[in-house]
Amino acid sequence: MYIDQSKIPQATAKRLPLYYRFLKNIHASGKQRVSSKELSEAVKVDSATIRRDFSYFGALGKKGYGYNVNYLLSFFRKTLDQDELTKVTLIGVGNLGTAFLHYNFIKNNNTQITLAYDIDKDKVGKVVGDVPIFNLDELEESLPEDVTAAILTVPSQVAQSITDRLISKGIKGILNFTPARLTVPEHIRVHHIDLAVELQSLVYFMKHYPIE
Amino acid sequence: MYIDQSKIPQATAKRLPLYYRFLKNIHASGKQRVSSKELSEAVKVDSATIRRDFSYFGALGKKGYGYNVNYLLSFFRKTLDQDELTKVTLIGVGNLGTAFLHYNFIKNNNTQITLAYDIDKDKVGKVVGDVPIFNLDELEESLPEDVTAAILTVPSQVAQSITDRLISKGIKGILNFTPARLTVPEHIRVHHIDLAVELQSLVYFMKHYPIE
Repeated sequence: MYIDQSKIPQATAKRLPLYYRFLKNIHASGKQRVSSKELSEAVKVDSATIRRDFSYFGALGKKGYGYNVNYLLSFFRKTLDQDELTKVTLIGVGNLGTAFLHYNFIKNNNTQITLAYDIDKDKVGKVVGDVPIFNLDELEESLPEDVTAAILTVPSQVAQSITDRLISKGIKGILNFTPARLTVPEHIRVHHIDLAVELQSLVYFMKHYPIE
Repeated sequence: MYIDQSKIPQATAKRLPLYYRFLKNIHASGKQRVSSKELSEAVKVDSATIRRDFSYFGALGKKGYGYNVNYLLSFFRKTLDQDELTKVTLIGVGNLGTAFLHYNFIKNNNTQITLAYDIDKDKVGKVVGDVPIFNLDELEESLPEDVTAAILTVPSQVAQSITDRLISKGIKGILNFTPARLTVPEHIRVHHIDLAVELQSLVYFMKHYPIE
C-alpha cells in the first residue's frame, strides 16, 4: 500500500518515533498482535489518537483482534528510513552536549552523532562516548559532506553565527537547545527545545490543566 | 477582562512562556507596541497562529497599530503566575542534570530548582549552580513540602520507582528526560522529553517536510 507521507499530519508524524520504539519492544517479546488500548498504556497517548494516527498509516485495527505487529513494524521501518543512517554533528561539548554523546542513539535509531565540535583546547582531540571532538575553528575544513544534521548545545550568544556556518556547509536540520530563536533559510528545518520553556510550560499545565 | 484559562487550547498554552520571554525583551527595549509580524519573526511562530493565540488572551491587535506591549505583558505575568515561585527538585546529577543546575531558570521564570538528589556519595553534600545535592536514599526525610515539581534525569530503569516515591511525597508535576514512559495517577502532570525521539523526529521532518 502506498502512503503519501506528506498527508500525515505533523502532530501524527511527531509520534512516529515513539510508536516505532514500543512496537520493537512488543515484537521482541514475541507478540503478533497489539490493541490500541495496550499501545495506549505503553506510550501514554490516548487510544482514540492512536487509532486516528494509525489510520493514516493504512493500518486498520480489527475489533477484538488489534493491529498486526509485523505490518506496523515494517511500515514504521520504511517510513522512518531505518535502513538509512543520518549522520549528525554536535556543537558544544558542555554538560548537555556530553549527555548527548553518552546517549547511544544508534541502538534505537537511524541517527548517529559521528563527530562533535568545541572551542575548548582541553576537549579538542578527545573522544567522548566514541565520538571524536574537533576544533570549532576548523569546522569548515573538517565537517564531512555526509553529515546533514546538527545538535546545537552552545551558549545562545553564538548560536546564530554557528548556525550560519553550519548551513553554508550543507547542514539541513538543526536541533536547537539554546534559548536563541534561529533565523534560517526556508529549506532548513529547525526543532527547538528550550529547557526553561519546557519547565515553565509544565508548571503552567500543572496549575491550569490538572487532569487531562 | 476575565479570561477562562481552561478555554485556552493546550497548543496555545504551550506557547505562553515563549511569548512572555520575548515580550519582556521588547518591553525592555522601550517599545510600546508590537505587530504580529514582528513577534512572528522573533519567536518563529507564523503570524496567523499568533493572532489566533492572542485572541484567546483578549488581546485584539489593531491593523497598522499592533498590540499594546504593556497589556500583553501584564496578562502574561498574571496568567503565568510570575509572582508565585514554583519550587522544583532535580533527581539525578549526571551530565544532563548538571546542565540543568547551571541553567539559571530564575532569571526568566517563576521556577527555581531549590535542591537536587543523587546516589553518588561524591556528589551528595556538594553545591552545583547554587543548588545543594542531597542523598536520594533520604528523599522521604528531606524533600520540603513546598517543592511541587521534579525534573527526572536518571537512568530509565529507576525512573518509575523514583516517580512513585516523588508522588507519595506530594510532587504534582514531572519533567521526564528518561526514555521510560511513566505510569502516574490522573492528577499528576508528566511532560516527556526524550532526546533520541527528538533527534529522530527532526530527521523525519527533514526528509518529509522540507519546507513548512
